Amino acid sequence: MKTFITDDFLLNSETAKQLYHDYAKNLPIIDYHNHLSAKDVASNKQFENLTQVWLEEDHYKWRAMRALGVDERYITGSGAAEEKFKSWASVVKHTVRNPLYHWTHLELLRYFGIDSILTEANAKEIYNIASRQLQRESHFTQGLLLQKKVEAICTTDDPTDDLRYHRAFASENDSLTMSMAFRSDKVFSVENTRDYLAYLEKLEETTNLRINSFDELLDAVDNRIAFFHDHGCRLSDQGLTHIPFFETGTLDIDDIFKKLKNGKDLSLIEVEYFKCEVLKHLCKSYHEHGWVQQFHLGALRNVNSRLGDKIGRDAGFDSIGDFPQAISLARFLNHLDKTEQLSKTILYNLNPRDNEVFATMAGNFNDGSVKGKVQYGSAWWFLDQMDGIEKQLNVLSNMGLISTFIGMLTDSRSFLSFPRHEYFRRILCNMFGSEIEKGMLPDDIPFLGKIVSDICYHNPSEYFSFKKMPNRSVKQQGSNPFQNV
Amino acid sequence: MKTFITDDFLLNSETAKQLYHDYAKNLPIIDYHNHLSAKDVASNKQFENLTQVWLEEDHYKWRAMRALGVDERYITGSGAAEEKFKSWASVVKHTVRNPLYHWTHLELLRYFGIDSILTEANAKEIYNIASRQLQRESHFTQGLLLQKKVEAICTTDDPTDDLRYHRAFASENDSLTMSMAFRSDKVFSVENTRDYLAYLEKLEETTNLRINSFDELLDAVDNRIAFFHDHGCRLSDQGLTHIPFFETGTLDIDDIFKKLKNGKDLSLIEVEYFKCEVLKHLCKSYHEHGWVQQFHLGALRNVNSRLGDKIGRDAGFDSIGDFPQAISLARFLNHLDKTEQLSKTILYNLNPRDNEVFATMAGNFNDGSVKGKVQYGSAWWFLDQMDGIEKQLNVLSNMGLISTFIGMLTDSRSFLSFPRHEYFRRILCNMFGSEIEKGMLPDDIPFLGKIVSDICYHNPSEYFSFKKMPNRSVKQQGSNPFQNV
Amino acid sequence: MKTFITDDFLLNSETAKQLYHDYAKNLPIIDYHNHLSAKDVASNKQFENLTQVWLEEDHYKWRAMRALGVDERYITGSGAAEEKFKSWASVVKHTVRNPLYHWTHLELLRYFGIDSILTEANAKEIYNIASRQLQRESHFTQGLLLQKKVEAICTTDDPTDDLRYHRAFASENDSLTMSMAFRSDKVFSVENTRDYLAYLEKLEETTNLRINSFDELLDAVDNRIAFFHDHGCRLSDQGLTHIPFFETGTLDIDDIFKKLKNGKDLSLIEVEYFKCEVLKHLCKSYHEHGWVQQFHLGALRNVNSRLGDKIGRDAGFDSIGDFPQAISLARFLNHLDKTEQLSKTILYNLNPRDNEVFATMAGNFNDGSVKGKVQYGSAWWFLDQMDGIEKQLNVLSNMGLISTFIGMLTDSRSFLSFPRHEYFRRILCNMFGSEIEKGMLPDDIPFLGKIVSDICYHNPSEYFSFKKMPNRSVKQQGSNPFQNV
Repeated sequence: MKTFITDDFLLNSETAKQLYHDYAKNLPIIDYHNHLSAKDVASNKQFENLTQVWLEEDHYKWRAMRALGVDERYITGSGAAEEKFKSWASVVKHTVRNPLYHWTHLELLRYFGIDSILTEANAKEIYNIASRQLQRESHFTQGLLLQKKVEAICTTDDPTDDLRYHRAFASENDSLTMSMAFRSDKVFSVENTRDYLAYLEKLEETTNLRINSFDELLDAVDNRIAFFHDHGCRLSDQGLTHIPFFETGTLDIDDIFKKLKNGKDLSLIEVEYFKCEVLKHLCKSYHEHGWVQQFHLGALRNVNSRLGDKIGRDAGFDSIGDFPQAISLARFLNHLDKTEQLSKTILYNLNPRDNEVFATMAGNFNDGSVKGKVQYGSAWWFLDQMDGIEKQLNVLSNMGLISTFIGMLTDSRSFLSFPRHEYFRRILCNMFGSEIEKGMLPDDIPFLGKIVSDICYHNPSEYFSFKKMPNRSVKQQGSNPFQNV
Repeated sequence: MKTFITDDFLLNSETAKQLYHDYAKNLPIIDYHNHLSAKDVASNKQFENLTQVWLEEDHYKWRAMRALGVDERYITGSGAAEEKFKSWASVVKHTVRNPLYHWTHLELLRYFGIDSILTEANAKEIYNIASRQLQRESHFTQGLLLQKKVEAICTTDDPTDDLRYHRAFASENDSLTMSMAFRSDKVFSVENTRDYLAYLEKLEETTNLRINSFDELLDAVDNRIAFFHDHGCRLSDQGLTHIPFFETGTLDIDDIFKKLKNGKDLSLIEVEYFKCEVLKHLCKSYHEHGWVQQFHLGALRNVNSRLGDKIGRDAGFDSIGDFPQAISLARFLNHLDKTEQLSKTILYNLNPRDNEVFATMAGNFNDGSVKGKVQYGSAWWFLDQMDGIEKQLNVLSNMGLISTFIGMLTDSRSFLSFPRHEYFRRILCNMFGSEIEKGMLPDDIPFLGKIVSDICYHNPSEYFSFKKMPNRSVKQQGSNPFQNV
Repeated sequence: MKTFITDDFLLNSETAKQLYHDYAKNLPIIDYHNHLSAKDVASNKQFENLTQVWLEEDHYKWRAMRALGVDERYITGSGAAEEKFKSWASVVKHTVRNPLYHWTHLELLRYFGIDSILTEANAKEIYNIASRQLQRESHFTQGLLLQKKVEAICTTDDPTDDLRYHRAFASENDSLTMSMAFRSDKVFSVENTRDYLAYLEKLEETTNLRINSFDELLDAVDNRIAFFHDHGCRLSDQGLTHIPFFETGTLDIDDIFKKLKNGKDLSLIEVEYFKCEVLKHLCKSYHEHGWVQQFHLGALRNVNSRLGDKIGRDAGFDSIGDFPQAISLARFLNHLDKTEQLSKTILYNLNPRDNEVFATMAGNFNDGSVKGKVQYGSAWWFLDQMDGIEKQLNVLSNMGLISTFIGMLTDSRSFLSFPRHEYFRRILCNMFGSEIEKGMLPDDIPFLGKIVSDICYHNPSEYFSFKKMPNRSVKQQGSNPFQNV
């Protein structure tokens, strides 16, 4: 059977087709938030087979397989690579209407030229064809990115990361920029004292600084921010259920820090207060460095302890939470803004019931200084599907300005996930096209085509201006990291 | 005027029509959750007139009549049956765009062959035609079910129910299975101590057990679970605003039980803790018996005390609540799962803002053991209309797997409500048909037709495998319950 | 380029066109909730230029300009009127898909006959054409209202307002009714003690009553309610994040009042309790006077303190909150209903995630006494756009009765905002038209046309029956207020 991914997939009007083919399709990609392995990029990793590149880190697929009653052995377990692929192939048809179904066939077509529906019957053949192609340089990690016209990627890195792979890559590569985001979560996640103390040790080792007080913690954090900045980092990321907010002084932060250092668990309110105080400092430091800051709010993570303990974190046992968001988020942003220390900010929500809260919150802090300064971020994780994308675009349009939107990102660990940009662009063009044809927008293609191009490429390009790592800093510190690994 | 309920009602594309007529329309119905009277089924009740069968227990219609300014006398009051029907007929046209408008005309057409729009002008004629038909055996309760190809129904019963009507029916009927669900609400609803103590007495009488401690309460409950199990029960149901969760030992459950027995009101936290501890036990017991468990979460009931006191519970004074759901639901399910005591589970939410929380929560506990083990349940109560159904189907598709869905149920007290399955099937086929025609799904009718059939019939059939009550148990305990009534 | 606002704008089917042109377009407007200046109406104000009438009080436009990086000087600052207009003109094209884009071009066309897309290029010309027209009597405030067939408007006024402009207008005008709503917010807003005490002083001056106890506060409030009633007021309005509810006696209200009078700040719970007790009294008083009461719930106001301090309140720094609503709203309404003191009530929510809670809450308190007694109100503020309007209409239809709906209002400070009624009517007709053509509603245009007309005009007309201020009362108290200003 022929694939259903035609040239005009998802484009339900002539105008949509025109917008997509003339204004969106050929633009480069700036993937400003993902979880790609810098090592795999820098080493130009070659994948052994289709299972390795496609299934090994994809908890979306794992969840679907579990829901269909597939044994864990053939998901994350000891099953052979080809057996695992067959399991996945047998599941694909049951994912209709889930984004996996569209992604699967887009990815097979775009990376491997395979335009069949994946089934148990053709699984072996597809596995072999694709695995063979993966042995060509065009399908090593860098080739996969360049194929898709990826101009810049931005990985997500722990403050203790030494960025050796970013350095190595920057010193040797000109056609692609790999930047990084400072993901601060572990610095403020004090729910578990033992884990936190272990992290503090790591931070001490990395910085060669003692951390015996809250102030020393902040010094260590600043040290890492400066290190990241020197390596070209211009972006941070924070993941939380919600932003906590207290006026400074509500509790005694030094006492809380001592309690932690003495190995005691904090109360719920102490955890919240600690987070808030760290976040305030982080965000002011980001502002000082001219960084963009991202907040990913609303996930309820690691819900299933039995399987989580066996299989690990980020393995498909997370879901959407229902935390109150508005008041403390407002106060926190206002705290930064009132001393003019609010950076460019992107707010992502996981629960779509909060779409309108986030979109209108962003609007409160646009102050005329920068176009689209505070962004209501792209549909995230569970929302990264047609419905979720359309809802984000509609709420953003109705309660903000879609013309200033910085658009899509993959947020993915997978080197095969870049057709999600194509998917997004098709949905975007379909939306504009349909409204033009209904007379809801003027029939002015160049005008609306420009807005489409801005969202797909020019807005994020201007908003981030990712630059290659400064060469001097790279040369000074660089060495071949692969020799040490 | 001719009815608008044509053969292709709600089917807006040729593909939708094909799916519905070839893959959905003729399938039997498994109505796995409703509130039909077992007595009325077992006695093959004959209705006196259209008012009795159609208006007497339908609080949806009552609410609409009150909103239009109809006096309570002609709703639940002392008005004559025919007067009440005329009141309803005068209201029908004002219900356009409410599901009542579609249901009304579907039911008139499917059960009585009446294809007119009901108005005050034809009210008398329709009343007479339908009331006459109700005197034929085809329109006694069992006939009404068989007409609609109902294969199995599952009523909702209090733990103290003696199930005499289920026994009587099972011993005499072969063409229809009537199973039951163990509705545990009264066992844990300790908001009102006096009501709860009265219920404990009833439970003592039913079980012939003393209940002087929390452990004895659990024994009595287990006694009833065993009794229901012996009568073929394989399903439970719980209705709550939200699932409470505490680690066992947070409070002293024996003290709380004593406080209750001493006639004292519990504090809010004691109520929550008591519920949680009862629920834990219930769910582990269900798991031991291999039952399916249902949770209906989010209703705010009996909001209007003035009219509620006059007219009673479940009389149209309930609404949608906005309770936090995610955290404690996650912890509760995890509590059961970590000792592998989590049964097949169906999660229904009343507030559609929680759709995504529920759909993703279900996904966390699918462990590969059973296809579709944890289900995000069908659109419930206020959500049981086209918009609500489409939203549930879309969220389920985007965040889970619609192909594993067990589909529709009536949740109704009415013997005339089974066209809601038809309504659901039309909406489902329309959704698939439209996406096939837009190229969003492959143009493979047999493949997608099978998924449609699975959702409409085969999935629930496999998930529940309702069986007739074991004959021996029936014969031993059975007697003609109608002699005693 | 020609405007896209054609005669059939937003009407995507022949049936929609028929409904709009035959049943909706020509009906008068009853704008039962807005923030027009009574003074500007009474004085028949003449605007100097397009900036003054269009940009000076429109925080929707300000927010858009800030998001695009326009300097505050050209928004609310010292920029010249024409410069500000040029700034706005340069921004308009970037507002595509935001309601501003549609409103802008509807307003240019309907009030000034300008059918061009506003751009920087034609800004000067449009500014001049429109500003010239504003000098004609047809474009003074009263002319602007009469042009649009406005039959009645209802302003929103503080209890201390002396209503002089309403009196003056009533005594001299016959073609238009200007009523008022009693906006009670300041009477119960005790978050800031100093502000509240200042307000109490104003209330003492206005009533010539001493307010030294909570009872005296209620007397003063009743005095103002009586004053407003004598001036024809039949409507009240309350704006809150959420309705608080406590049983009377939970705290000591006299102690709280003393604390206030002593200049002390109240605790959060005291604030809530105080509000609740004032609201109970207000609502019982409204009921005694036969008024309609409105609740606007869910805004998170004045979020940005830096810009708010500079520019003021209601300047575009408000957003959508996520407050729990259901339980206390239910208890509050029930408190009033159980003594039969619940007035006709309109419930507006700002967070669309609460649509279903509000729609079903309204249904709980319809008691058959009045058609549509408790209304789920029209899409408010951020929701006043096509998506938001459609969602409100759909939820209302599915969970209530759209046929009883009292329809649209502007909620605006702007004399140019009345095409929002046209916008609403087009959306409404498009919705019905589309469903008729799909066979979801009977093909009975007169029947559904009547429902459309009811919603657009006859329902609000019947629900409010705004009357001109009684002439005698006016003559007794009236004097020319403009001599005193």
